[in-house]
Amino acid sequence: MAKVLTPRNEDFPRWYQDVVAKAELAENGPVKGQQVIRPTGFALWERMVSEMDDRIKDTGTENASFPLLIPQSYMQREAEHVEGFAPELWTVTHAGGKQLEEPVVVRPTSETVIGEYMAKWVQSYRDLPLLLNQWCNVMRYELRTRLFLRSSEFLWQEGHTAHATYEDAHAFTLRILHEVYADFMENVLALPVLTGLKTAAERFAGALNTFACEAMMRDGKALQMGTSHELGQNFAKAFDIQYLGSDGKQHHCWTTSWGTSTRMVGGLIMGHGDDSGLRVPPRLAPVQAYVMTVKAGDGVGEAAAALHAGLRDAGVRSRLDDRTDVPFGRRAVDAELKGYPVRIEVGPRDLAEGKAVLVRRVDGSKTPVGLDSVTEAVTQALEADQQALYDEALRFRSDNTTDVGTLAEAVEAAGTGFARLAWSECGLEGEAKAAEQGVTVRCLQRADGTVPDSDQEPDLVAVLARAY
Amino acid sequence: MAKVLTPRNEDFPRWYQDVVAKAELAENGPVKGQQVIRPTGFALWERMVSEMDDRIKDTGTENASFPLLIPQSYMQREAEHVEGFAPELWTVTHAGGKQLEEPVVVRPTSETVIGEYMAKWVQSYRDLPLLLNQWCNVMRYELRTRLFLRSSEFLWQEGHTAHATYEDAHAFTLRILHEVYADFMENVLALPVLTGLKTAAERFAGALNTFACEAMMRDGKALQMGTSHELGQNFAKAFDIQYLGSDGKQHHCWTTSWGTSTRMVGGLIMGHGDDSGLRVPPRLAPVQAYVMTVKAGDGVGEAAAALHAGLRDAGVRSRLDDRTDVPFGRRAVDAELKGYPVRIEVGPRDLAEGKAVLVRRVDGSKTPVGLDSVTEAVTQALEADQQALYDEALRFRSDNTTDVGTLAEAVEAAGTGFARLAWSECGLEGEAKAAEQGVTVRCLQRADGTVPDSDQEPDLVAVLARAY
Ligand SMILES: [Zn+2]
Ligand SMILES: [Zn+2]
Repeated sequence: MAKVLTPRNEDFPRWYQDVVAKAELAENGPVKGQQVIRPTGFALWERMVSEMDDRIKDTGTENASFPLLIPQSYMQREAEHVEGFAPELWTVTHAGGKQLEEPVVVRPTSETVIGEYMAKWVQSYRDLPLLLNQWCNVMRYELRTRLFLRSSEFLWQEGHTAHATYEDAHAFTLRILHEVYADFMENVLALPVLTGLKTAAERFAGALNTFACEAMMRDGKALQMGTSHELGQNFAKAFDIQYLGSDGKQHHCWTTSWGTSTRMVGGLIMGHGDDSGLRVPPRLAPVQAYVMTVKAGDGVGEAAAALHAGLRDAGVRSRLDDRTDVPFGRRAVDAELKGYPVRIEVGPRDLAEGKAVLVRRVDGSKTPVGLDSVTEAVTQALEADQQALYDEALRFRSDNTTDVGTLAEAVEAAGTGFARLAWSECGLEGEAKAAEQGVTVRCLQRADGTVPDSDQEPDLVAVLARAY
Repeated sequence: MAKVLTPRNEDFPRWYQDVVAKAELAENGPVKGQQVIRPTGFALWERMVSEMDDRIKDTGTENASFPLLIPQSYMQREAEHVEGFAPELWTVTHAGGKQLEEPVVVRPTSETVIGEYMAKWVQSYRDLPLLLNQWCNVMRYELRTRLFLRSSEFLWQEGHTAHATYEDAHAFTLRILHEVYADFMENVLALPVLTGLKTAAERFAGALNTFACEAMMRDGKALQMGTSHELGQNFAKAFDIQYLGSDGKQHHCWTTSWGTSTRMVGGLIMGHGDDSGLRVPPRLAPVQAYVMTVKAGDGVGEAAAALHAGLRDAGVRSRLDDRTDVPFGRRAVDAELKGYPVRIEVGPRDLAEGKAVLVRRVDGSKTPVGLDSVTEAVTQALEADQQALYDEALRFRSDNTTDVGTLAEAVEAAGTGFARLAWSECGLEGEAKAAEQGVTVRCLQRADGTVPDSDQEPDLVAVLARAY
């Protein structure tokens, strides 16, 4: 059979493009840098939204919806923020056939407009913390785009919270990082992530501190999967977000913001995919079990339908493919491309022996299973393969992470993976020098891998890598 | 106690504004006509999305995501479409600090861009029907706006499908109208809706036929709650959506589109609200039961928490309000404003007798209930009150619907409700004349209330009303 995809070790970026196209995940939109997310790709995102949204709500955060368009003047109120985002803005100048009095921008992120409303809604310490989130689209002008990874428009969630104290804001920023982001990424996406602090150079425009989750892709490069920002009182001062304390005095709030996007779909592809296509972790998978008729006749259709119904009854997200007018081989290749965790192939020969074949996407193994045991076998396979994907990704990362002693060694090691270097050996100068060679500090960690409270802590370790 | 809201019979539009503000549902955005949907309002929309999305998926439709920005040239390909939408467009002219080569518009609806992709994706009859939907934001320039009802940006779902035959497209348009829209509105929103055909004057720009769901608000005016359009082959021809038939020949597809929006939140408010605020039907309600401590002490907090836990275990969406530092009266007024279907008030006096008080929002009734029976009483009340709200709305509509014989009588009757007039007595001329007095034909129905296939059927009845 001809190769459907460019092999990864031949040309990884080309392999990625092939998977996105052939698994029918997304396409370029008609306007430069925009994307069309097709049903197969969107179903992955919907499952991400559902799992993330549960975790976000568990923190007490409520969803809301803020406008797409933001007055230019809002963007300008926080000095670093406007500087960071000015080059990326899309501007609306006309509406209803007339020129607008003040140009407005399509939100690149919503700190400013949400800040304006927080200032209205927060009056007293009783109104705090104010915990908001929205799922929406944002736009940033990008010259070089890549589907899911970097596009002019993307879908995301952006959380925005206001707190009475530094301590409360700081703790919440880290709670989102660990309990929402890292928990989702490790336990649902099956991708181990490093959590750490961004350097000043990589920080969000206007933030005191940016914390991030970084995952290793199968080419050894890093992907920033999510960020959680401590904004200090910068936005509270720019937008006058104040509260009357129990001490009878006015205080500025401490705010946070945090986001994850459709970029995670790119991370899923490059974190688990192989030369046959996507491999979707069972807990995430919109289709966990794919029941296929090999060919028509001999009760095959009925048996497949019964297995499908049994799986559904057991709470498995099953899909039935009984399109016997499409060649079986083509359908099987398509199922591999789309990364369904298990396939159940129902054909006349096995059926005559009371069996169907269980094919596991993770390792390609094919096992005949008695019809009565299919549901149980599937359930067990789904659980085991969730873990197997995580273990494999963790092993890959650890095989491709090197402790180094000098910046030169770090740049060298970042050619194939992550390099861990004492931050005192790197520093701002070393960071700038590495950047000239396409290597960046992905995050700062404590020596034990935990997240530092600030980049002023002693004995920090910098993780350097090439990144998407 | 001072009235919190302007009474409905004093000034209905003012009452509506009051509810939206005081129940903390939404506010105006900083850019004219845009809206901020606050958590209480957004939770209603989230529940609508969830219930609608289930029904949409049950039809075999899959979700996807298409770009926010559409090249102006796309809008121009279908003549009636561009004419209908040109005055409402928001235009982006600059990005990344430079002028764009071709101006692009913020989508007012996505027939054109989705048409472009359908043309790529549909090759043979095997690819049909192609059933797509997206949940997204759209923008239309509006001079006079009202929160939820008419705003420059709104959230909606837009379904877009392509079919091999007229019959299949026609049937699907009506399936959406009945099985998704009317079913959701009647069984979840508890709002009876008239389903019918729009006249040529009220049709979607570029459609052959527009079918609609129309509900009566408590001021007797109509609100269009959702529309389902038969687009014939107009868009298929403009965008070259063709398929190779089983006859070996190329054919143009027949397409449909259909939408519902955050406007339904406005319908919910005006369809069920009373002088104390919102009344949310239990099946929709994000908070079905609101458990309140009347004041602290005497085991009240513990009892309330236990009742809340018991309700949650029974699958009731319960919220606990134990803020004894906020006056009880203020909390109770707020609960009425927000329309929680039932409240459980837990106070020391009732508790001493082993009871709590069940307050039903629909009729304001207060009943002491033994602690052991609370869950059962709540469950029964929720079921009964879902029906009670529907019955009340249906009675109101039927009390305010008049069969009339002349256009003059119809315009008169439309002052307080719906008028039913033979379409042959009204016609295009009568429709234009009524419009001068602010009365429009909401839909055409057959004499038995069912939906006609076209406005050419004999003996049609026109329903006339003032409308939002
Ligand atoms: Zn201060
Ligand atoms: Zn044709």
